[in-house]
Order: sequence, then structure tokens, then C-alpha cells
Amino acid sequence: MKEIEKLMNYRPEIRVVDATLRDGGLVNNFYFSDEFVRALYLTNLRAGVDYMEFGYKASREMFDESRFGKWKFCKDEDIRSIVGDNATDLKIAVMADVGRCDYKNDILPKNESPIDMIRVATYIHTIPAAIDMIENAAAKGYETTCNLMALSNTQEKDLQIAMDLVARTDVRALYIVDSFGALYPEQLARVVDMFMEIAAKYGKEVGVHVHNNQQLAFANTIEAVGDGANFLDATYNGMGRGAGNCAMELLLSFLKNPKYNAYPVFQFVQNQMQKLKEEGIVWGYDLQYLMTGILNQHPRTAIAFTEQKRTDYANFYCELVEKD
Amino acid sequence: MKEIEKLMNYRPEIRVVDATLRDGGLVNNFYFSDEFVRALYLTNLRAGVDYMEFGYKASREMFDESRFGKWKFCKDEDIRSIVGDNATDLKIAVMADVGRCDYKNDILPKNESPIDMIRVATYIHTIPAAIDMIENAAAKGYETTCNLMALSNTQEKDLQIAMDLVARTDVRALYIVDSFGALYPEQLARVVDMFMEIAAKYGKEVGVHVHNNQQLAFANTIEAVGDGANFLDATYNGMGRGAGNCAMELLLSFLKNPKYNAYPVFQFVQNQMQKLKEEGIVWGYDLQYLMTGILNQHPRTAIAFTEQKRTDYANFYCELVEKD
Repeated sequence: MKEIEKLMNYRPEIRVVDATLRDGGLVNNFYFSDEFVRALYLTNLRAGVDYMEFGYKASREMFDESRFGKWKFCKDEDIRSIVGDNATDLKIAVMADVGRCDYKNDILPKNESPIDMIRVATYIHTIPAAIDMIENAAAKGYETTCNLMALSNTQEKDLQIAMDLVARTDVRALYIVDSFGALYPEQLARVVDMFMEIAAKYGKEVGVHVHNNQQLAFANTIEAVGDGANFLDATYNGMGRGAGNCAMELLLSFLKNPKYNAYPVFQFVQNQMQKLKEEGIVWGYDLQYLMTGILNQHPRTAIAFTEQKRTDYANFYCELVEKD
Repeated sequence: MKEIEKLMNYRPEIRVVDATLRDGGLVNNFYFSDEFVRALYLTNLRAGVDYMEFGYKASREMFDESRFGKWKFCKDEDIRSIVGDNATDLKIAVMADVGRCDYKNDILPKNESPIDMIRVATYIHTIPAAIDMIENAAAKGYETTCNLMALSNTQEKDLQIAMDLVARTDVRALYIVDSFGALYPEQLARVVDMFMEIAAKYGKEVGVHVHNNQQLAFANTIEAVGDGANFLDATYNGMGRGAGNCAMELLLSFLKNPKYNAYPVFQFVQNQMQKLKEEGIVWGYDLQYLMTGILNQHPRTAIAFTEQKRTDYANFYCELVEKD
């Protein structure tokens, strides 16, 4: 019953991060129309969302700009063309992947950029590089988070050491990223407890970003709320890689802070997300994602299964365990 | 951390109930082919499922047999045509609704019937009638459960009094039924605790049957496992009224008892459930069900929205709150 009273009230420290363009961009190669992005920005404003993640700051040396929509690169001028000076309460975030971002060149000083927050995504074995990126961005004036991907594949003691290192920087929040949708709520609770302990020691906050492979993205997000996490990622209609993410419409319907409003989300789903689905863009729970989730694997094989429009689930499972 | 150790082990008392024909029948008016039902029976055997619910024992005086598939009525001979003498470990269940079942006539003595368990479905205001049905079925030799529907709409003290009355009968399990998909896991935990207290007093067990309006059917089911519930309802691919139920493929992938096997479920989804979807039968999470869920309403309006193939979610929400 840890949080049952809080279900009736709310914690004002909670921040909702819309990751639709970034995680959803992994589904459509970031080819969102300007109309879609502008509508999403306006919707986030009306819905009371705290941060809008526009996409990745991906290296243009490593990735061919002609093969992706612009939100894989999130040039400052492209963001400005949507938000102008963004004289609003909605903060702008981008994700910077360790090893896939020319952060020293591509991330300008904060006072020259519309971006407010740099979210540094890292695996456990690249923590020192992540720390360098966090310190670089913090020195330039940005808020930062450290998003530890594929967390379900790491050992607890390594996690603890890694997060203790990261927490010594100027980072604002330590993010738990269940990339594989592998964790059950009680396992996530254990991880949040560990993150909360480190965060408390250094005056940091904890965030969660989870995938829906086992229809647990929303459940895990609200589990984390009850455990003390403040930064919550969600995407409209749950759009995101593979099985997708915690759905914004679910999360805003749950959160009790009157500044949040789910109705604009309903409108956006009606007017914009339906179109994407009609265009044949596919995401969301299906058995192939459950399988990679329970096996604690990257969803790439399940995504290929989806792209090939296969439905021979049992065969796919055999392929997975055969190679295990 | 109440149950984290049990996540690595299992509780042998747990019983999985396949409710596909019964709750799924609400989606297609119980028109399942014999081939489908036979394949489902054989799959349940291979998957280690404990009970298979064939449908309702609905009154043939109240309901026109020509307007429904046979599993709305579950005549003993129809069940026998699928299971023969059912010389297996899989038990056969049917649901009997208070006020919609001629139980005195239509439920034969157990030794003349292939049925093992009568699940009595009731609302809070028809508890004495439910008790009469339970006692009638128990006297005939059946296992029984009492399934309290629309539980999220009842007051806790009423619930407590009602369940205390029911628990004095020969009933085996007291079932929590979240018909509206309205409960969050921490709310469900509170209800399970209350049910567990009454169950312990009278030597009964607790069951859960939940709906997926907020993508919480699986999460709520495993929450209840952690809280001590033994009877767990699930349906293949989550097929069930409106947003559907806890998906069997998720539940059997979660449960650690080696007698359970999710692989036959994957095969059945591949070979049988896909066909239903291709025939245009629709169930599962969508925004209209989220809305009735958060408003704690019966899903009938959302089902009508689905049947009319509407996608104007925001308008639908306005209709709901306008009439609220």
C-alpha cells in the first residue's frame, strides 16, 4: 500500500517527457511531416507535458542524411522552425547516443540553442564516454539525463557502480531504460529502489523509459511513480520501437496533477496517429515482442518479423530459442 | 518486495482458467467453430491450463438459441462432443449468471455431466440469489466460484459484507471481477487483501478476472498473484469483451510452474486467433475503452463505438462526459 494515498493526490515534482518523435522515429525512420510535429508541439503545450523530445542528435558523419527524416539529426534550425523561440513552459529535449553523436561540434552552447535538455543514452560499458558527454553538455548550460539502455541485461553491482559514477556529475536524472521490455513490476521496483538510493545520496532524480513487450509499459511506469521516480517517458498511442512505449493517453489519465490534460491527447490520436497507422506504420504489442521480452533480448529479430509481415509466431519462437 | 523471491519460484496452488470461449464469446456471439473449440481444448491440455470455461449456461427461455452460438448455452451434450469423457487433468467450467440461468433445470447432477465447476456471476445487489445458485450447484456435486462483477463500482463495506455471506457457503473461490478495467494495481492490491482476509477466515481461495481497458489486465493479474490470489483468468490473445482480458501467452510466460507451457499458446494464436482477426472480429485496447475504464463505466458505449468503426475518439469522450 506504499502509494495508495498518493493515487488520490499527486507529486508536483513529476515531469512527463513526450518521446514520440524520438522513439516513434525509430519506427518510421524519423519521417514525420512538419504538420505532424507542429501539431504535436501544440498538443503537448495544451496537455501540460513537461518535456518534448524531438529526436536524436545523430552524427552526420556516421549516418547519411538522405536516408532519414530530419529528426534523427535535430538541427537547431529545424527545431526552431517548429517552436520559434519556444516562449512556453514546455522544455525541448534531444537524445545523444554515446558513440553516435558528434557532441563537441553538434551541440551548441545552450544560449545559442532552442534545446533545454540533452539526454545521454548509454550502455553499461560506455559509462566514461557518457560522463564526458554529460559534462560537456552541462558545461554548455544544458540540463542532462543519463539513460542507461538495456538495463535488464546488466548485473546489479555493475549498475550500482556505474550510476554512482554518473551521479557525481551535473546530471539531473538517472534514467532506467527497459529497452527489451523484459522487467516485471516487482523487478522494476527493485531497480528503482537502487537508483533512488544513489539519487538521494547525490541530490539527483530518477526517470523511467519502458517498452511494452509484455503489456507492462504503463504498469511499470506507474509502479515507478509509486517508488519515487519523477521523470516519466511516454509516447502518443505508445508509438515506439517494436512493442512501443507507455502510452501518453494512459499516463495523463492516471496522473492527478490538474496541470495535465488527456483530452488534447485524445484529439491528437484521432487526427494524427490514426493517419500514421493507415499509412501502414506498425508498432505495439504482439507475440514476437513478448518472446524477445521474456528472453531478455534486443527486439531487432522481432522487428524484422513484423517488417516481413510474418505471423508464424511459433516458428519465430523456435528460431529464437534455437539460436539462444 | 513482497513477492520478488516467488518470482523465481512458484506457488503450486495457482490455477489458470482459460476463459476464451466465455469472455471471447461476448465478442462473436459465441459463434466458434467446432474445429476451433476442439483445437483450444487440445491446446489447453498441452499448455497445462487447469480449467477451461466453455461459455455460459444461459436460459433458453430468455435467449433465443437461433441468435447465438451454442456456447452461450453449453449443453452437456455439446461439451461432450468436444471432450468425450474428458479423462484428463483439465477441468471443465461454465459460467452461470444470476437471473439469466435456469440453474435448477439446466444444471444436472455432477455425476451426469462433463462439467466440473460452476462459476456464478453476480452483481453486489443479487448476492442472495448467487448464494442460492452456489448452494444448488454445490449440492449437485460441483466445485463453485462466486464472481463479483463490476466490483470497481461497489463500496468496500458492502463488498466485505457480501463476500462474508458468500464465504459461508461451499464456494471454493471468491472472484474479483474488474469488469470495467477501472482498477490500478495498487487499488486491486487493496481489494485482494480484503478478499484474502475473508477467504482465510473460511478456508476459501481468491480469484481474479480483469479487463484490459488501461493495458493493465496482465499487470493486475500478476499483482494479484503477488497478493495471494490462486485462481487466474486469462484468454488466448486476450480475446474478450471490449478491451479484452489478461492474455494467456503473457500469463503462462510469467508463471514458473514447469507444468505450464506457453509454446502451444503461441501455436494456437498463429493457427486460430489470426483467422478470427482476419474475419473482422475486433477486441483489445483502444482509446474508447481507456475512457470508459477511467470513468469507471460499463464498456457498452465503447463497444458500440467500435462496432460502428468510429475513430473520433475526442468526440466520443465528450459524449461520455456530457452524459456523466
